[in-house]
Amino acid sequence: MRGAVLHAPGDVRLEQRDDPTIVEPTDAIIRLSATCICGSDLWPYRGVEHVDRPTPIGHEYVGIVEAVGRDVTTITPGQFVIGSFFASDNTCENCRAGYQTACIQRVPMGAIGTQAELARIPLADGTLVATPDVPPADLIPSFLAASDVLGTGWFAAAAAEVAPGKTVAVVGDGAVGVLAVLAARQFGAERILVMSRHVARQKLALEFGATDIVEERGDEGAARIKDLTDGLGAHSVIEAVGTRESMLQAISATRPGGHVGYVGVTHGDLPGPTLFHSHVHLHGGPAPVRRFLPELIDLIWNRAIDPGKVFDLTLPLDEVAEGYRAMDERRAIKTLLHP
Amino acid sequence: MRGAVLHAPGDVRLEQRDDPTIVEPTDAIIRLSATCICGSDLWPYRGVEHVDRPTPIGHEYVGIVEAVGRDVTTITPGQFVIGSFFASDNTCENCRAGYQTACIQRVPMGAIGTQAELARIPLADGTLVATPDVPPADLIPSFLAASDVLGTGWFAAAAAEVAPGKTVAVVGDGAVGVLAVLAARQFGAERILVMSRHVARQKLALEFGATDIVEERGDEGAARIKDLTDGLGAHSVIEAVGTRESMLQAISATRPGGHVGYVGVTHGDLPGPTLFHSHVHLHGGPAPVRRFLPELIDLIWNRAIDPGKVFDLTLPLDEVAEGYRAMDERRAIKTLLHP
Repeated sequence: MRGAVLHAPGDVRLEQRDDPTIVEPTDAIIRLSATCICGSDLWPYRGVEHVDRPTPIGHEYVGIVEAVGRDVTTITPGQFVIGSFFASDNTCENCRAGYQTACIQRVPMGAIGTQAELARIPLADGTLVATPDVPPADLIPSFLAASDVLGTGWFAAAAAEVAPGKTVAVVGDGAVGVLAVLAARQFGAERILVMSRHVARQKLALEFGATDIVEERGDEGAARIKDLTDGLGAHSVIEAVGTRESMLQAISATRPGGHVGYVGVTHGDLPGPTLFHSHVHLHGGPAPVRRFLPELIDLIWNRAIDPGKVFDLTLPLDEVAEGYRAMDERRAIKTLLHP
Repeated sequence: MRGAVLHAPGDVRLEQRDDPTIVEPTDAIIRLSATCICGSDLWPYRGVEHVDRPTPIGHEYVGIVEAVGRDVTTITPGQFVIGSFFASDNTCENCRAGYQTACIQRVPMGAIGTQAELARIPLADGTLVATPDVPPADLIPSFLAASDVLGTGWFAAAAAEVAPGKTVAVVGDGAVGVLAVLAARQFGAERILVMSRHVARQKLALEFGATDIVEERGDEGAARIKDLTDGLGAHSVIEAVGTRESMLQAISATRPGGHVGYVGVTHGDLPGPTLFHSHVHLHGGPAPVRRFLPELIDLIWNRAIDPGKVFDLTLPLDEVAEGYRAMDERRAIKTLLHP
């Protein structure tokens, strides 16, 4: 099969890779209908994370089941399925608590590399969720978004305890940030403030339900949020960047007793005294997307939400290298790839 | 009146200070029935916090109202009252959200200095809660505990979302830690693990409802908690120390999706990636004790709880210097002072 391989920073190639096979009796093999490039794929692409040998890449996927291992009971060949960036058994105590990304058997899909024609999905019964039927082509981008960025934005909104009547602020205007806006709208937020200076992303955020755009950053940005909330701060703040600065901005934009939901992979240290005196609730981490998949699939299937709009560049898998360049240069928010 | 004054590290003296008077029409003056020394008073006493001139000290208090300002409507002379370490209006948005320590009008009582015969209490209607009647003498230590350490332990248990059926771990065996055990027992925790190597504190924790003592510390302590919880970690962990190490110990002793309630004044930085991958909920800060006072007063009045046991040294106010020495040298958990 053809699959993307990262050789060195800035060097992604589409190559012939071995077709995957059933390794464990709980595996499934899927033929990808679509895959995509994640903001987090840019870390090794940019050399921020070290890669010491050619490595398959990609962790987002939707597709048709081709084969299943002998212990797979709920997933069958021919189904259209969606999974997330960690395979999980969905039966252990952590999964049952809704933290499938902390599954005691979890397998990172990034190590498998789903920017490819085929992929092996471990723990298929726990990991994959099938749609009611094979979906029409126009729904595929939205189902693909559910595999990571929509599910991550959804978790951020849940972690920030977004609810009717609340004012929500979103720090970060990438794919996760704008889809957190969509989630906040679905959760019934009264007001959704998005921090963005990027016109195309502002426009998408407004389409997804944002009510206000805040162009100020850092301390000024947090001060602006307070100005807009009677000096108190937002009830719920979603952090979708992952730097120390963005975390501090999120914490100081939140009112005492409010909730910060953070899904940007946190780099750097957080100052304990600032956190202590903020009186915020903090929750986040690698999003347990699997928890939300049944609900997200239902909303997409019924066309209640259209998260697929987040893809502003669609390329054949053959042009994967251009897909990375476009995201690296911020010409694209998110690139969808057709195998 | 007589009142304690900190002159320099290690130098607390009982001196003649001016009697307090009504300054604002919302003030009350109380005659203290009892006061006490807090773990946090040891910071300036030990020179960790700088004191550049003689400063009144103390922020815990119960007593009889002597006078009230003309705008005070709910508190009347002769009542026995309890307040906490921040005066608060109890009407602003933050107070109504249950975060009276973030009141937009808050006044730190430590700046007033309640280790004295009399004290001025700002925002008396919002700050003070009266008991049903003047209590018998044997209940006074328990009411005094409610002024800070019991209320702080209670908030920690609430922030850690302690509930029936849950396993709780407590990091810290000071007055707040052992009273967090009492709170966890009242909240219906199934199992309460206390980290302590101090025999007298272990004994008090067991009296207050602890089920297990963990003597290991740091990484070993967190590993021991995991051993005792099927490898998952506790559902709820209370942090009542405030160092970077104790925070890390608390976070790593918590299962994914579990809750850390932290009330030790957090010093140092927290590593973002560790927090991110832990999947815990984090909440805490300066305890809004006022939120819990009506309930705590009711429990104490009805002798359902006996938090006054936390005072293992009682001295006349004249011996305040010995009270500090005993706590500094860890000869006492907490010192009660009779004016």
